This record gives sequence, C-alpha cells and structure tokens, in this order.
Amino acid sequence: MNEDAWIRRIEARIPVRARASSRKPGLMLGIGDDAAIYRPAPGEDLVFTTDMMIEERHFLREYPADSVGWKALCRSLSDIAAMGASPRFALLSLAVAPWVKPAWVDGFYDGFLALAAKYKVLLAGGDLSRAARASIDVMVCGAVPAGEALRRGTARAGDTLYVSGALGGASLGLRSGRSRSATGRAARERHLRPEPRVALGNALRRRGIASAAMDLSDGLSSDLARLARASGLAARLQRPLPVFPGASESDALHGGDDYELLFAAPSADRIPGRIAGQRIARVGQLIAGEPGRLFFEGEALLPAGWDPFAK
Amino acid sequence: MNEDAWIRRIEARIPVRARASSRKPGLMLGIGDDAAIYRPAPGEDLVFTTDMMIEERHFLREYPADSVGWKALCRSLSDIAAMGASPRFALLSLAVAPWVKPAWVDGFYDGFLALAAKYKVLLAGGDLSRAARASIDVMVCGAVPAGEALRRGTARAGDTLYVSGALGGASLGLRSGRSRSATGRAARERHLRPEPRVALGNALRRRGIASAAMDLSDGLSSDLARLARASGLAARLQRPLPVFPGASESDALHGGDDYELLFAAPSADRIPGRIAGQRIARVGQLIAGEPGRLFFEGEALLPAGWDPFAK
Repeated sequence: MNEDAWIRRIEARIPVRARASSRKPGLMLGIGDDAAIYRPAPGEDLVFTTDMMIEERHFLREYPADSVGWKALCRSLSDIAAMGASPRFALLSLAVAPWVKPAWVDGFYDGFLALAAKYKVLLAGGDLSRAARASIDVMVCGAVPAGEALRRGTARAGDTLYVSGALGGASLGLRSGRSRSATGRAARERHLRPEPRVALGNALRRRGIASAAMDLSDGLSSDLARLARASGLAARLQRPLPVFPGASESDALHGGDDYELLFAAPSADRIPGRIAGQRIARVGQLIAGEPGRLFFEGEALLPAGWDPFAK
Repeated sequence: MNEDAWIRRIEARIPVRARASSRKPGLMLGIGDDAAIYRPAPGEDLVFTTDMMIEERHFLREYPADSVGWKALCRSLSDIAAMGASPRFALLSLAVAPWVKPAWVDGFYDGFLALAAKYKVLLAGGDLSRAARASIDVMVCGAVPAGEALRRGTARAGDTLYVSGALGGASLGLRSGRSRSATGRAARERHLRPEPRVALGNALRRRGIASAAMDLSDGLSSDLARLARASGLAARLQRPLPVFPGASESDALHGGDDYELLFAAPSADRIPGRIAGQRIARVGQLIAGEPGRLFFEGEALLPAGWDPFAK
C-alpha cells in the first residue's frame, strides 16, 4: 500500500465526517486537506496538548495493538481532562515500523477510535510516515468556557491536595507481565487501557472545586513537584495514600501512567468522597516553602517518577 | 539533564510568553501546563496541521541542527499557507536520540525559533521524549476568516493550474551533497531551509484568486493527483514547467520538499506573473475525467513523488 492508500483506508474508518457547509461551530473540514478547520463557539477557550508514544520507550510491539491506540489518545485526553475542558478533536501522527502490518494499524485504530467515540473526539487529520521504530504523536484540542480552564500554577498555600482513584496500578501492571491473577490482570488493564478522567475534570471546573489541577502521567512525586513549583509552593504528602490493590506505596508515590487527577482545594472547603463517579482521597497539603520541594510524612521526598531522560 | 531541566532550558528560549490575564484573543497560556490555551477571535476559523520528521527518513544527523528545526516548522507552516491562513501558534513534540547533545537541541531551536519569529508563530507547548532515532512532530494552528480557507477539493473542470517559484530544487539539493558550485549551494539551501509561502497563500485567498490550492510537499505529480482527485477531476500538465536552475524536468515533476504552492483559477481570469513577490507559472489545466488521473504533454503520467511507503 502507498501513502494515499493508507490514508483512504484510515479515512474510511472515521465514523463522523466534518461538514464544511455547516453554519454551526465545530469541525468544518477534517481529514484529506492540508489542514483541518475548527470553528469555535463564541466565549470559548480552546486548549491544545500533544503527547508522543514511541516503541520501546512507551510501548512494546508485543502489546495488543488496540491498547497502543487507546493509550496514545488517552494520554492527551487526560491533559484535556486536567484542564477541566471537553475534548473536541484530535490530530494523529503515526510512523509505522517495518514490522507493522495492516492488521496492526487496524487494531491501533480500533483502540484509538473506541476511546475517541467514548469521549466524542473527532479525528480531524494527521500525518503518516515510516520509521525504524513505531512512533505516535497525538494532538487533542478541547474547549472550555473562556477563562475557566483549570491550571497548575493557581494553588495557594494551605490548600489541601487530593487525587482521584487509586495510584500505582499502571506501575504494577507494567511489571506483572502476563500474570493471570485477578490483581495482575486488573493492574495490566490499568497499564494498557487507562481511562482519562474527563467527567471528573469537568466537574471540578464546573462546580468550582479545584484551585489547581493536573493529571498524573509521570507519577505523584514528579507531577506534584511540578504543580507545587508552578504555584510557587512546597507540598507535603501523608499516609494513607490510595494505593491500587496489590501495588506498593512506592508504586503509588512514583509510578507513572495512572492518568488520575491531582488537584488542590481550599482547606476550608468540604470535598465529597466521590466526584463524577471517582473516589477522591486527601493526600496532603500545599505549604509555603521552596517551590517544588516535597515532603512525605515529614521527610524530604525527591521526585522519582517517570523521566524519559533518567539514566 | 532530566525532563524538567530540558523543558526549563527550552522555556527560557521562547521569546514571547502568553498572558493568561489578557482579555484580548490570542494565546492565553503557553508552555508549562497540561495544555496550551488559545482564544480565537469571533468570525475566525482555526486551521490545524501536523507533520512528522524522522531521522534517516526525512533528515540525517549530519544535517545542520538549525536546518532540521527550521524545516520541521516549515513543513507545517506550508500547509497553513496552502489554506490561505495566518499561522498563530505551534506545538512541538521532540524525541531526542542517544547521539543528540544539548548543543544540537539548541541549534534545532535556533532554526525553529528563527522561522517562528519570521512568521510570528508562538511556540505554545509540546512534548519531550527519547527514542532510538530523533523524531519530531510539529502541530501548527492558523487562523482564517470564517469560511474562507483555501481547499483542495473546490476546483472546477477547465480551471487553469499554476505553481509558485521553481520546482525540483530540493530534489537537486538532496543529491548534490556538499557540492560547492553556486547551483549546488542554492539547491542545497532549498532542500535544508525551504520557505513557506504564507504571504502568497494569504494573497490568493484575500484577492479571491484561487479556486483550490495546496502546497507541494511530496512533488507536483503526487500532489496534483491529490488536488485533482479531491476536486473529482483529471488534470493535464504541459511544458515548460518552471524548473529550478540545474534541476531536471523529472525533479520538477516528481521531486518533493519544494513547499511551493499549487493552485487552480478559472481560465477566464487573468493571473499576474508575480503574486506576493513570488513568480507564478501556468503549468496545466483541470479537466473532466477519472478523478486524480494525470497527463503530461498528452501522455499518461503516474504520480511518482515522495511516498513514505514506496519500496
């Protein structure tokens, strides 16, 4: 197959096509031209994020192809969720490796488009190439009422820190391999097919709960250090952390790929134990101090989550 | 350096920072959060494009680092130009290979930011990773008055075809290697540091000249076949083609990476020989026939431009 044949194969799988003739806001032009066209509604901010996934760094060719497509989109959707925004459309750049067969590409799109359908994200375009290792880059555009996006740098000293769900599952899943125990399978599922917390992010914004928010993609210690630094604050974490069944406290502190949300809220506010269907756990507090400095149960804690540049 | 140190190094180089407090349309939030925020002006369409560049496919590590950054952005800017839009901001995903040193990254950003400054494109965010081969994906968002974007599929039978500039230079430059002749150096410059035709694309839109347009990234034969197919038409090309000095007619027909614009206009219209500073050459006509079918001087012509999936 040549490039145009690949593109036609992909185009045929996109469930909803944009209509250039529409007068309503939305996607005006999708796959097939030099660029896609999106017309925003008045009073809306658009938020944009992009995330790469590279063979042997973020996934292995042995992984189910649909899980790679699912996760490639999830990573960007999770950023959109963390801004309190609603995803609108995506661009997908895919470089296939020599080992990639059309069936793998089909499986990849199965997973990508299944998650896209779940969150009503239109695939509006992208790029297709070849490389020695398969490599994927996903850009997602989301929308949020003007000025209302949740951000990292807006927390205040004294705000309480919360996370959704349970942490460390993806880290456990990564090392569980093909374990067939119920715990191993649940953790592996978390590693392969995480769920972006879009409804939660929207609820945190709409209900005015969060003073700052971000998603947990690299691990609590690394991501919290970023939120704290962006807010010009230090932070302390405390036990008990909400640990994924079977995972260790270290998994919960430093494990990446959970895609839960971390947020801050004024300590005087009463935060429900469950928001948008997700369990919410109190994990610590932001405090005055050296920006980005962390403590866990009173001891200094160094960020030790996923870092692509770590040795 | 770890990931955060890399990001801070990059952030420090971005000349213009977005201001979240502004009430005016534009970039509200740039690098450093989960996503960038862009607030469009009313009555504007936003256009989005993304293009990958992968080591050993699109560039070699021996190339000047600044030329890789320049070209990575140029490829997407050229798509924005082809839509008749004005570029606004970019997201840059960069995966560095083991051989990449900080000086290379600095050089890469020198080239990227030099072209960005020339066309007033803000770098609003991105992703940073590592891979066996260096790999780059650039997303550019551009703006155009609502409903006015130039597209591929809107040409009519009988429309005349035009291209800007001279074709085949990048192809000649690719095979000239380190030739030090004036011709070789000019062609190599065209290959390494092409110029996106943003002013031309805007002029074609604003002056209502083009019935359809696209950029020449893969080569005239391949790209024209796409424009013709999108418009449901066949096309014929004729001599003389505007051939880059020293290049062959075959370079001009099939060579990629020129980033000139191809456009159609009603045959009754008088098209200036120069638009927005670029020479405009008449190269053929769109005709009724099998969509995407091409003829050159009366003979059938097969698309033979750059195809990442070609054997």
